[in-house]
Amino acid sequence: MARQLKLGAVLMGVGGPGQHDVWKDDEIPGDASVDIDWYIARARQAEAALFDLVFIVDSAFITPDSPPHYLARLEPLTLLSAVAVSTRNIGLVATVSTSYNSPFNLARRFASLDVISRGRAGWNVVATGDGGTAANYSRDEHFDHPTRYSRALESVRIAQGLWDSYEDDAFPRDTATGVFVDPDRQHRLDHRGEHFHVRGPLNLVRSEQGHPVIFQAGNSEEGRELGGAIGEGIFTHHPTIDEGVAFAKDIRDRAAANGRDPEGIVILPGVDVIVADTDAQAREIEERRRTDRDFAKDLAQFGRPFGWHDFSQYDLDAPFPDVSHIGHGNFGSQTTRIVEVATAEGLTLRETVRRFSGPLPAPFVGSPATVADRIQEWFEAGALDGLNVQVTVPSAFARFTDEVLPILRARGLVRSAYESDTLRGNLGLPIPRNVHTAARERTATLTA
Amino acid sequence: MARQLKLGAVLMGVGGPGQHDVWKDDEIPGDASVDIDWYIARARQAEAALFDLVFIVDSAFITPDSPPHYLARLEPLTLLSAVAVSTRNIGLVATVSTSYNSPFNLARRFASLDVISRGRAGWNVVATGDGGTAANYSRDEHFDHPTRYSRALESVRIAQGLWDSYEDDAFPRDTATGVFVDPDRQHRLDHRGEHFHVRGPLNLVRSEQGHPVIFQAGNSEEGRELGGAIGEGIFTHHPTIDEGVAFAKDIRDRAAANGRDPEGIVILPGVDVIVADTDAQAREIEERRRTDRDFAKDLAQFGRPFGWHDFSQYDLDAPFPDVSHIGHGNFGSQTTRIVEVATAEGLTLRETVRRFSGPLPAPFVGSPATVADRIQEWFEAGALDGLNVQVTVPSAFARFTDEVLPILRARGLVRSAYESDTLRGNLGLPIPRNVHTAARERTATLTA
Repeated sequence: MARQLKLGAVLMGVGGPGQHDVWKDDEIPGDASVDIDWYIARARQAEAALFDLVFIVDSAFITPDSPPHYLARLEPLTLLSAVAVSTRNIGLVATVSTSYNSPFNLARRFASLDVISRGRAGWNVVATGDGGTAANYSRDEHFDHPTRYSRALESVRIAQGLWDSYEDDAFPRDTATGVFVDPDRQHRLDHRGEHFHVRGPLNLVRSEQGHPVIFQAGNSEEGRELGGAIGEGIFTHHPTIDEGVAFAKDIRDRAAANGRDPEGIVILPGVDVIVADTDAQAREIEERRRTDRDFAKDLAQFGRPFGWHDFSQYDLDAPFPDVSHIGHGNFGSQTTRIVEVATAEGLTLRETVRRFSGPLPAPFVGSPATVADRIQEWFEAGALDGLNVQVTVPSAFARFTDEVLPILRARGLVRSAYESDTLRGNLGLPIPRNVHTAARERTATLTA
Repeated sequence: MARQLKLGAVLMGVGGPGQHDVWKDDEIPGDASVDIDWYIARARQAEAALFDLVFIVDSAFITPDSPPHYLARLEPLTLLSAVAVSTRNIGLVATVSTSYNSPFNLARRFASLDVISRGRAGWNVVATGDGGTAANYSRDEHFDHPTRYSRALESVRIAQGLWDSYEDDAFPRDTATGVFVDPDRQHRLDHRGEHFHVRGPLNLVRSEQGHPVIFQAGNSEEGRELGGAIGEGIFTHHPTIDEGVAFAKDIRDRAAANGRDPEGIVILPGVDVIVADTDAQAREIEERRRTDRDFAKDLAQFGRPFGWHDFSQYDLDAPFPDVSHIGHGNFGSQTTRIVEVATAEGLTLRETVRRFSGPLPAPFVGSPATVADRIQEWFEAGALDGLNVQVTVPSAFARFTDEVLPILRARGLVRSAYESDTLRGNLGLPIPRNVHTAARERTATLTA
């Protein structure tokens, strides 16, 4: 079968960063971000449209100025466990930080979601770039950038090791012989690494898909290295097709350098699709979102990737200030890009805040036919393997599922039925071999 | 209304400690401990019988010798979140350790379950007495006993503080004025204690019951102190009515000494109820469980409360060995009692293992009428406020719900309908006042 687009739905009840007013929409309950029924309804909407996965973003640090969706939200794993028993095929991807969770707990909770959902769990591994979070976890200072990524990589390796604690035939449960477990099929990990030591075994079996699928989203040098090392799905965003192609090549090259199959990686840019009856109407909606904004709220959020630096202290109409004295190089790729653009173009602070607030530059804006054409163009150029579509207003999401997807389906570019009950099955990813089973079979071959 | 019995169902798919053979029962799927459908079905069975709560025990350290239920099991919070959306009234109580989870994560995950279930969450606070667990969490040594309890108390206080981060009127969500959140109704915690510092606020609202209900089960001096300080529900076990009465009085006295309402505590002994057509038949079942045992498996498990001390090194038929050199006084009340009984009665090691393995001494064994009479006797004597019934074989549980409960219901001792949709409402516990709302109202009164 020809390669087809993979589809994720980013569930953001009352709006993501920069979306100050989404909560006012009549279709969205004001408490959508804490209403499990809203999440279940949206997941079922996405499942009815044969999406591969729903995706939950997360953060743990808030102030009174935080965007509405951040102020109060359900914890991703409890949220998705409730969604798991209310759906059948759709994947369930939770963002959880390796900076403030122990690897054993991470491995256990994702394995539990994976078993509960019968093989539909995914983990978006983040290294928590938000400097405010440390103070919620008995730390005076945030881990520095390289340490965060080094902990992330080690955490994922530990989790993958723990997920192989039991071989698939570990539980004979034979009432005749009285054998419940085969002790030779249960394995300790005995990991001793730079940041953690973990004995194991994990007290859970593998699910129908073997391991939860590992997703990664960071775009810094360390983030891309992590993606190349362990990412099976990559969440990203690039404003042009050429940048998307270059990014995809870079990630696949890094994967190959890690001895991995570069084609075994699914790249899903996060996009805000805007569909209207005509291209002009869609562009008008996009323009309104860009201009009709509360500058004070944008300014308050602007400092977030700079470790919550207070930009209100500067003259808004002077050139973008020198912030090289803050952060000690610990910030990610986002701040680097902001400073580069502001400097290169000689922007004022006000202009910079305006440029980098509001909707991301959106290539997928237009009539259903236009949006379908653009998606096909990006897909065929190799700039993406699918899309991670932000879902807020249900009727706007329905325009994508009911008007754009049928066009792409008629062209054979999206599925007409789920191929599998597992997330790996639908994404076309292989089930990881259990390392202990593989080692045993190698030994058997050598001694045969 | 007269005081009525409160009822918990301990869901133990393939059998708890000492229950080596429960998994062989035809009614139990061999993978019950990892089968979410089994848990949902049992929770619905308990809810149909108007139980107050289901209860999930937990541990994270296993060996090949662990009891079947421990070898592979779902993580309690993901498990109960799936049960939450599959039930309507029954409480959902998860065991989670304060030794290997950060207070912020604990507060957040329980708050999330509480919001998802619309006010039905409970937290059984444990301080992890199992010495093997440390090695899964990058620690070479287990926290000592006083430290474990001191961390537990501080963790609960932090969680309770974080659960009040938002006052109930914090979210006007007023589309006319454009006010989503009232910043004066969001509160930081700024906790700096002996073990933790936590800034807050928590990014979740309070549920319909205000806070998750706090349960506690430890029986050592420190455990009882913790129960007196923060326990709203107490899980326990005492072999005689007099010991049960003395324990209840002790806990209520400690609660009063903490300035709490001693009647605002629900004491639920964990029991294995055995119901048969006649008393003789029920006693026969109990006797078979006590004698028909695999001694090797009992011996392997016997070392667990002694920090997994290996008792197979001793002569089984010599007097119980001197183990005063191990543990450094870090063990709980269980080992103290074992050593006391073995010494006082001059038991051999074999006799001691036999005495303390297998079913707990069970006062609730007999025909439906006998069991109902015994429960009423213990209840009216003040030895319990209800029962925490272990659920393994569904038909055995049905004998309790369908034959014993109707007798107690006819006597007005158990409910005929749920009083509430929340766990607090059904247990008769008050909704905690938000501390910030209370402080504001005090100030308003003083300045009026």
